Amino acid sequence: MGRNTLRIGVMAPGTRIDAGIPDEVKRLASRLYPEAPPEIEFHPQCFLSAGHFAGDDAARAAAFLDIANDDGFDALWFGRGGYGSCRFALDVLPRLTRAARDKVYLGYSDAGTLLAGLYKAGFPRLAHGPMPIDIARPGGAAAVERALTYLIEGSAEALEPHAGTEGPAVAFNIIILGHVIGTPLQPDLTGHVLMLEEVSEYMYRIDRDLCHITANPAIRQVAGIRLGRCSDIPPNDPDFVLTEEEVARHWCAVSGIPYLGRADIGHDADNKVVPFGPPPAV
Amino acid sequence: MGRNTLRIGVMAPGTRIDAGIPDEVKRLASRLYPEAPPEIEFHPQCFLSAGHFAGDDAARAAAFLDIANDDGFDALWFGRGGYGSCRFALDVLPRLTRAARDKVYLGYSDAGTLLAGLYKAGFPRLAHGPMPIDIARPGGAAAVERALTYLIEGSAEALEPHAGTEGPAVAFNIIILGHVIGTPLQPDLTGHVLMLEEVSEYMYRIDRDLCHITANPAIRQVAGIRLGRCSDIPPNDPDFVLTEEEVARHWCAVSGIPYLGRADIGHDADNKVVPFGPPPAV
Repeated sequence: MGRNTLRIGVMAPGTRIDAGIPDEVKRLASRLYPEAPPEIEFHPQCFLSAGHFAGDDAARAAAFLDIANDDGFDALWFGRGGYGSCRFALDVLPRLTRAARDKVYLGYSDAGTLLAGLYKAGFPRLAHGPMPIDIARPGGAAAVERALTYLIEGSAEALEPHAGTEGPAVAFNIIILGHVIGTPLQPDLTGHVLMLEEVSEYMYRIDRDLCHITANPAIRQVAGIRLGRCSDIPPNDPDFVLTEEEVARHWCAVSGIPYLGRADIGHDADNKVVPFGPPPAV
Repeated sequence: MGRNTLRIGVMAPGTRIDAGIPDEVKRLASRLYPEAPPEIEFHPQCFLSAGHFAGDDAARAAAFLDIANDDGFDALWFGRGGYGSCRFALDVLPRLTRAARDKVYLGYSDAGTLLAGLYKAGFPRLAHGPMPIDIARPGGAAAVERALTYLIEGSAEALEPHAGTEGPAVAFNIIILGHVIGTPLQPDLTGHVLMLEEVSEYMYRIDRDLCHITANPAIRQVAGIRLGRCSDIPPNDPDFVLTEEEVARHWCAVSGIPYLGRADIGHDADNKVVPFGPPPAV
């Protein structure tokens, strides 16, 4: 695009971002790429507050479109999860232009709703991976560094080790994918390796969501499921007995979906990048 | 069926029932109908314990089929909610016989998963309403009395006042219906008044589930939504600002579904009965 440095736009589809995050992320980027640091622009919407959300639905939708439809940006980096993407996803998808299609989109958790809809719409450069807010985690600089090396160099070390090695891949938060099932945002995942992760949900809810997801006839066409980390699971009363991997194996067996093992993704500093779709051509 | 009294079979599709519940329910039934009390048989499965569940999936499925397929029972009364119906619903539905089709099924909460699948299968005598466990609530005897007068006499006072007056009706717990969306359990609700209620869920989750449910193209064919009570909502941090009725109105407006007002249902002693489908012929 005639520039030497990557230009990355950040918006927050759900929860607002603390005002100190951009400097931390930019400092890290400058340390990593001292000669040609990427331009990382945090849309002012990131810092708005409207109840639960980083600005109201119209503000979040507008920020998403501002970055997505601007061909001056090479990437749209979701700034943070929380809750809110589904509130404007169906509104913005029909308003995306050619410039939006050429861009990389990176994020996870709640932003998976938008990644799902973009994948359904045939966008070719989507990835599940760390977000700017991860810099606030213990050890989180490693996650943000991983995201930056993926965005800037397509670094192979940033990738989840199975991503693209077993066919096309996608990755989602379990609850988020559950809420995409049966809606116009649900992409065709036939033949894909579906990687799933969860955080802060009771085991019975993980079970219930995997029951739901794997009961969907279209989801039964995936090549297999890999289970990422399920962290901070509150204690179940009574104990659920089954672990998250036993739960995943159970629903794979019931639904006839191959269980392929674990995936190196999760709501943590180790969260690796999963590019959606087939591996990039060499 | 050649008997003077109704014979009601109780099974627990999710959580186990305390051993003291049957006597309380039977005493109430005898007080209500001293000359011809209904026979209420609690299947031994109700009292089993397997981790989270009232017996394992096979035990719960077998108990459901024992009662459903026995033409000696006039009604299958779900004993309690919790979580567990979805774990065996797809297994048992193809194994139901003619005797199962002639029966009344009454329950709510988690049991909605089975009511959904039974309605999808064309069962004509389903209803959302109180369960035996409700007797343990403050004032809960009134709820159980309501269920009994509905089962025994089809009492009009037991009914949710709008049920059947605006066309065919159904009622579900919001989260439970959300997990039916996009699965083979999802019934065709075209032209139905859809009544929804919730308990103990954060407002952002009620919002997320209503977003999901109303985004489903088949659900958009309902005649309208009525909102039951949403009780014991944990405080949202930050405050969600919107009330449950504002949330319901929002998603109705977005999806083009008429919002019809409140419904007199919920996880409480006032929970009225909503027979599924068109009002019974007079």
